[in-house]
Amino acid sequence: MKQIDFSRTKINGGFWAQKQNLVRDVAVNAVYDRFKETGRFDAFKFDKSVNPHFFWDSDVAKWIEGVAYLTHEKREPRLEAIVDELVAEIAKNRDECGYFNIYHQIIEPEKRFKIRDNHELYCAGHLIEAGVAYYEATGKRELLDLMCDYADYIEKRFVIDKDTDFITPGHEEIELALVRLYDCTGEKRYLELAKFFVDERGVNEEQGYDWAGNIYNQSHKPVREQFTAEGHAVRAVYLYCAMADIARKYGDVSLKEACEKLFDDIAERKMYITGGIGSSHLGEAFTAPYDLPNLVSYTESCAALGLALFAHRMLLLDNDSKYANVVERAIYNGFLSSISLDGKSYFYTNPLEIMPDLHKRDSSTRDNSMWLPITQRQEVFWCSCCPPNIVRFIPSIANFLYTCDDNTVYVHQFMHSEGTVSIGGKDVKITQKTDYPYDGKIEICTDSDVRLAIRIPDWCNSYEGETIKGYAFFDAKANEPIVIDFEMKPFFVGANPRVAFDCGKYAVQNGPLVYCMESCDNGKMLRDLHLDAGADFTLGYDEELGVPTLTIDAYRRRETDKLYYRKADDFIDFYKTSATLIPYFAFANRGEAEMQVWHFVK
Amino acid sequence: MKQIDFSRTKINGGFWAQKQNLVRDVAVNAVYDRFKETGRFDAFKFDKSVNPHFFWDSDVAKWIEGVAYLTHEKREPRLEAIVDELVAEIAKNRDECGYFNIYHQIIEPEKRFKIRDNHELYCAGHLIEAGVAYYEATGKRELLDLMCDYADYIEKRFVIDKDTDFITPGHEEIELALVRLYDCTGEKRYLELAKFFVDERGVNEEQGYDWAGNIYNQSHKPVREQFTAEGHAVRAVYLYCAMADIARKYGDVSLKEACEKLFDDIAERKMYITGGIGSSHLGEAFTAPYDLPNLVSYTESCAALGLALFAHRMLLLDNDSKYANVVERAIYNGFLSSISLDGKSYFYTNPLEIMPDLHKRDSSTRDNSMWLPITQRQEVFWCSCCPPNIVRFIPSIANFLYTCDDNTVYVHQFMHSEGTVSIGGKDVKITQKTDYPYDGKIEICTDSDVRLAIRIPDWCNSYEGETIKGYAFFDAKANEPIVIDFEMKPFFVGANPRVAFDCGKYAVQNGPLVYCMESCDNGKMLRDLHLDAGADFTLGYDEELGVPTLTIDAYRRRETDKLYYRKADDFIDFYKTSATLIPYFAFANRGEAEMQVWHFVK
Repeated sequence: MKQIDFSRTKINGGFWAQKQNLVRDVAVNAVYDRFKETGRFDAFKFDKSVNPHFFWDSDVAKWIEGVAYLTHEKREPRLEAIVDELVAEIAKNRDECGYFNIYHQIIEPEKRFKIRDNHELYCAGHLIEAGVAYYEATGKRELLDLMCDYADYIEKRFVIDKDTDFITPGHEEIELALVRLYDCTGEKRYLELAKFFVDERGVNEEQGYDWAGNIYNQSHKPVREQFTAEGHAVRAVYLYCAMADIARKYGDVSLKEACEKLFDDIAERKMYITGGIGSSHLGEAFTAPYDLPNLVSYTESCAALGLALFAHRMLLLDNDSKYANVVERAIYNGFLSSISLDGKSYFYTNPLEIMPDLHKRDSSTRDNSMWLPITQRQEVFWCSCCPPNIVRFIPSIANFLYTCDDNTVYVHQFMHSEGTVSIGGKDVKITQKTDYPYDGKIEICTDSDVRLAIRIPDWCNSYEGETIKGYAFFDAKANEPIVIDFEMKPFFVGANPRVAFDCGKYAVQNGPLVYCMESCDNGKMLRDLHLDAGADFTLGYDEELGVPTLTIDAYRRRETDKLYYRKADDFIDFYKTSATLIPYFAFANRGEAEMQVWHFVK
Repeated sequence: MKQIDFSRTKINGGFWAQKQNLVRDVAVNAVYDRFKETGRFDAFKFDKSVNPHFFWDSDVAKWIEGVAYLTHEKREPRLEAIVDELVAEIAKNRDECGYFNIYHQIIEPEKRFKIRDNHELYCAGHLIEAGVAYYEATGKRELLDLMCDYADYIEKRFVIDKDTDFITPGHEEIELALVRLYDCTGEKRYLELAKFFVDERGVNEEQGYDWAGNIYNQSHKPVREQFTAEGHAVRAVYLYCAMADIARKYGDVSLKEACEKLFDDIAERKMYITGGIGSSHLGEAFTAPYDLPNLVSYTESCAALGLALFAHRMLLLDNDSKYANVVERAIYNGFLSSISLDGKSYFYTNPLEIMPDLHKRDSSTRDNSMWLPITQRQEVFWCSCCPPNIVRFIPSIANFLYTCDDNTVYVHQFMHSEGTVSIGGKDVKITQKTDYPYDGKIEICTDSDVRLAIRIPDWCNSYEGETIKGYAFFDAKANEPIVIDFEMKPFFVGANPRVAFDCGKYAVQNGPLVYCMESCDNGKMLRDLHLDAGADFTLGYDEELGVPTLTIDAYRRRETDKLYYRKADDFIDFYKTSATLIPYFAFANRGEAEMQVWHFVK
């Protein structure tokens, strides 16, 4: 199976075009401004007046990657100039051996490669990805070359001289970056270096993460023996991405099997209905199976994004739609909620339930018994990994569209687009016309005869044709569109009762979109709004948010001041009303409000 | 209104006799043994090898009070000898000025009355209560005299010399103790000292409690301006007890009004269905109205006990059954759960829901996102205020039975007993025959003609006679029993939907007893056991626990490994089963198990 790079596909309308424009017009600049204000850009000048944090390099590197991806479709001279200036600073300030790390060169030069959790290789990985992306987008190879030098130096220190104080990085990322560097340069040493970091992880006792130990950064076992997703969720899925890459490049069966088990552990036991993962704020981590609390959910934006990256890589190992279904779940819900509708502000965490009143819980003391995520998106965070990750992710969203083998193009995702797929040695133009995810009708057309495998989404229960692992196969004729219509009808979803906090409740989904209720539409005490599971949903449109709405009959109790009452008593009679839901990704765009994904039904 | 002291009432059978025997046979000795082991008794010898904590004096003082109360019915020479020895040590070791405080005399003598939160006056208060109780039970007045000296010294320092570093204590208790000392000795200065501590509270800026501030110990406002229950729950209700006492003794209307508002704030907004209060472990405190989470409930045993004390004192200000109803709720549920059925172990916190699996939540890290209470009773705690509080509370439980005015005996609680009430200058014998709380039938008999006001419990909805503020009035004839039968039929209780964590759920109550489910009887995943609200309960009996049970039709889902599913899908069909409930007070007597008070219904 072969990945079809997004760079030859243009999202030329519909849902994702709007999101991509938002990144181009707003987000890439908003993130730049905030990073500029906080000194992240000036840090590259080794300006000693800014106090660089050890992961700032990666924040800016992801932003560069975002600029590169935007550039494929339309050059952005102002942004390119900023990148070129950054590259010049890196060239000027890097150590002559190739090493570049703002924090460690300025603040702790004596600690180079001595502290496992100091994100040196993580930053290097993001800079490598930026170098590859910027070269592929603009043809400018200076950053790429600098990063090759850096990778060579890393190889020297970690593989040849072995004189570092740790063997594998505390925060994974460089592994998948080195695979990309290999793909871009053809230099096998980089692939082998990636494999080295994957293979060595968890083999020797290494520096753990202070209170959280080795499981926190997936170093508790050799990776081929890791079958359950553990520890820091972003680190985990970045590692699993690299494992899937290495498994494919080397035909490594045991690594592939570990990846499969890790994926299933996430998708069947540790994933929110939104595709969010990592339910605990402590360690930003995976916890026990089925432990998916809604109010205290952590579900970092980067983790949902990373899960999509991992799931899509699994498609290159096995054409099973379960992987593409998870990509879809994450990108339309738990990832997409991370950016405001105006593109200016971001969620680091993406809760599935918000009760603002609970934040007042310990008014008489000073803290909360429960850690509660923030209720409103912010423009910048101290730890600002998510905003630039969003900026690089959305412009490259078409990466998820296709893979192919020698004679079949697999259509995994549905986006209004026009692209070129190289298959069996020739280029095939492939267009999709669709209002997905708001409408299930997709028209796919190719300019040559080609076999298409189209994913039947897991939410679709009306497709009656034959499928193999969730894909329907079609022999497409040149310029004869295939029209497939996945009927979208809102439906209720239950969770396994093992998920304690969803028990007795149901979520609402329409197509791939998970819906939620906000108090803006329904008044406070959403929890007491019981949806009529026997009624039909009415589709509407919210002009202010620009998103579809679902309205349904519902019941709630009359207000009373009584604390406890006999169920049989009259005054608590439920009265009929209605409930309006909006797509989850659109929540928290109208000020602080109650929000919930899981509802009682009647 | 006059309080009828328990000392002339014998609980001569039934429910509370069994609990009192448990204290006499087991608990008083178990607590002694644990306190002996931990050095709390040897500390009174000023044995420097033990490292006394600053509240140890109070732990032992409450135990002495328990011994005293047991003594009314039957002398306990072994225990009395221990008390006498302790009293001798106090006499020997106290400062010549009358001051006695183990911690401050041994460890920080230079800090006497300098640190508001060091519990000096709290310990003094409990020692005073012990002195009064021991004198009243045994006629031995040495401890009482020592405590009078101590109270005199406190008056000198705080009221006359005013040379202390704080004006009112950080932990209330001495106020109500001084009222008792006045009642016992007739020395008005003690009552005035109590009033002084009540009046001065919150008037001047005083030492707050480190992170929690002045609201933590009810010092944020003068007490007559405190209308909402705030801060540390035990401290709060001890203060409110004293406020009610002072209001009554002085006919202080504004203080009475504050008490009424505080009571209503608790009973209508901040009280668990079990009568537990103080929902947050942070500061062991009251929080916002309706904030009554079940899993993370703190609900300290001492707080439920203190609420009963406060509510009963309110009956002396106003014959409103709402106060006695709260006493009943607390003593049969949130207080009584604090002691194991074998009397050996105790809960400090009394959760309303236990999911042992949640304690494993952050297996991959090291802590919990949520503070969770312990799931099993313990024999001793580092902070062991609750066990001796239980030991003094149960033997004096008959204090809650009666109050009287000049011509009416108010019967607030129902316990199989034989007692003497002094009314209108003469003694009236009053007996109750009842299996309460397991049966609602009560036979009350007096040996003279007397007017009786019998509380109609709030759970009873079948009584059809006339009532005034929840009391039915009877002219009892000498030796002609009045038989009243409050029909007990299990019923479902709902909570105000403002109580977030009870929303969509119902509790089960039979008479005054709140029932709960445990996984011992019902298998795991209690949360997915939906009780059939239309079905009838079957009464049973659990031989092992020696408590009644309730069984009812219920539904639960078949096990599946699927994480999410369409509600319409078949495999999650609910199947019919049954659920068995036991009284809440009997939970956690069969090893660690799931437990819940609030259930889904179908």
